[in-house]
Amino acid sequence: MSQPVAKVSLTGIKPTGEPHLGNLIGAIRPALQLAEQYDSVYFIADYHALTTVRDPELLRHYSRSVAATWVAAGLDPTRTTFYVQSDVPEIFELNWVLSCVTGKGLMNRAHAYKAARDRNVEAGEEPDAGVNMGLYNYPILMAVDILIMESDVVPVGKDQVQHVEYAADIAGSFNHLYGKSYSFKVPKAIIPDAGTGHTLPGLDGRKMSKSYDNTIPLFLPENKLKKLVRRIPTDSTPVEDPKDPDSSSVFQILEQFAPASAADIVADTRKRLEAGGMGWGELKNVLFEVLNTELGPLRERYDALMEPGSELDTMLAEGAEKARERAGRVLGSVRKAIGVGK
Amino acid sequence: MSQPVAKVSLTGIKPTGEPHLGNLIGAIRPALQLAEQYDSVYFIADYHALTTVRDPELLRHYSRSVAATWVAAGLDPTRTTFYVQSDVPEIFELNWVLSCVTGKGLMNRAHAYKAARDRNVEAGEEPDAGVNMGLYNYPILMAVDILIMESDVVPVGKDQVQHVEYAADIAGSFNHLYGKSYSFKVPKAIIPDAGTGHTLPGLDGRKMSKSYDNTIPLFLPENKLKKLVRRIPTDSTPVEDPKDPDSSSVFQILEQFAPASAADIVADTRKRLEAGGMGWGELKNVLFEVLNTELGPLRERYDALMEPGSELDTMLAEGAEKARERAGRVLGSVRKAIGVGK
Repeated sequence: MSQPVAKVSLTGIKPTGEPHLGNLIGAIRPALQLAEQYDSVYFIADYHALTTVRDPELLRHYSRSVAATWVAAGLDPTRTTFYVQSDVPEIFELNWVLSCVTGKGLMNRAHAYKAARDRNVEAGEEPDAGVNMGLYNYPILMAVDILIMESDVVPVGKDQVQHVEYAADIAGSFNHLYGKSYSFKVPKAIIPDAGTGHTLPGLDGRKMSKSYDNTIPLFLPENKLKKLVRRIPTDSTPVEDPKDPDSSSVFQILEQFAPASAADIVADTRKRLEAGGMGWGELKNVLFEVLNTELGPLRERYDALMEPGSELDTMLAEGAEKARERAGRVLGSVRKAIGVGK
Repeated sequence: MSQPVAKVSLTGIKPTGEPHLGNLIGAIRPALQLAEQYDSVYFIADYHALTTVRDPELLRHYSRSVAATWVAAGLDPTRTTFYVQSDVPEIFELNWVLSCVTGKGLMNRAHAYKAARDRNVEAGEEPDAGVNMGLYNYPILMAVDILIMESDVVPVGKDQVQHVEYAADIAGSFNHLYGKSYSFKVPKAIIPDAGTGHTLPGLDGRKMSKSYDNTIPLFLPENKLKKLVRRIPTDSTPVEDPKDPDSSSVFQILEQFAPASAADIVADTRKRLEAGGMGWGELKNVLFEVLNTELGPLRERYDALMEPGSELDTMLAEGAEKARERAGRVLGSVRKAIGVGK
């Protein structure tokens, strides 16, 4: 009896900064859940980061750090395909092929490019000032990432749906021209369940985001983590008064972060806040304890993986091999279809 | 005693049609002379052709045919580096890297793109109508072709000087950002000696060009070659009158084509035309004989190389190996400089 072939899901991870709690809750955890249902592919998009990261040491560090983060957070490289984009040369050859079937008009309408253009025009600059061809070509490379892995679904945020639509468009152009010989699978965007539906607040109450500089980094030493939690703003409601958990940033972080094993703590804390008698300081202690209990082992695993020559190297080497096997199959069919090679 | 290292020259050959006499005289022979003086690199630019050639059989045929032509015309793969572009994946990875350091403004000013844009605007179309991203990105891939082989000089026609200037510009951008770790050699365009300085006339007296459909294909069977030569237009000067060789297309083809070994025939024919008594028909016979004597062995060699499984396969496989060795060295340094890989 043959097993039904699982559908393929693809997740790209851009290594442009230190991972924080918002990433873990909003991106990493939902993406890791895909592995239960899909033939899941995850890749570190280091060559996408190159459009903005010009410091080689930083790019190398971010790439390794983000790979270590995902493994520490539970990514199982043996059950998934997990690789660094730059380890798969087939991607860049296909990138050229798909350039040749992509209309320039499509690129002109891409969100990231249009935003850069609008900013320039507003500032009285040339429309293309400071725009590099990596940024402009970015949607084609994204399409390649998706198509070369024969992805069925790509989980994305709402602002990234266009990328998957572009991949489908570009696949369509290729299939129209060469479909007699080879057709790309046409991918679909899915918008993963956003958990509680709440936005995770940061240290200043606004959405936790690197660009607001209000994040809780994932792998802080214990004492620094404690200090950061203390900094989350609260109001001046006295200890004895009842409090609304849903308007407290501290409680929201607790609720969204806490693992199933800590569900009792969350429910109990909610009750105690609503009843009155629990102060913000005590709530912050609860949050710190839950964070530290959960993040402690992650940090240990992360630190071990970040050591030079750790098992992360083997994981990524094996992942590259799996990825190249998949990519090579697709590129081989494409080369045959377009009339390149033998 | 160590030998001085020869400078590198690079010649790209776009496989978009059947080779004709104009190609042999205007492009192939001058390019082959470079091998005497330079570490000469020649490549079949099949992935450039993909921007326009959509028929896989045709692209495959043109690529093989143009490779066989150059070898038949005297290219020695053991003394040069001779390869097909699509056999060197390193080129396409570097293409992405250089995209990221290339300003979009530079591409907007590229001749081929501007011409397409102007044609569209003139026809009342959207400026980017029918422009694919392969055409738009073409100058970056050209820059990669040049830079990845560490070319010192690139022999080009006057209309292609911009490509080499762009390669130099893009090398400059990279060197500015990453020059502490790796710098590309900055290439120069050279415009090769155009022989007699005359343009080779075609069957209708205009410049011989595929776009005028007035060419003498290189590998015609003897009887067809004879017929074509008969079709070259002449005036009605009577046989016995003196004739001006320099205003006769037939004589110009003879003079530009004839090898050194046939210099006597050319000089003698010139004298006889100027003296009077030699008719156009006889001149055409002389041209046919010289063409056929020279092209006969070329045709035989070409036909043998075009056989499936001929030694051309080995030549190109060995060429790809040499090219990948060169390209891999450069790409390795680039990856290190930008912070990709280990």
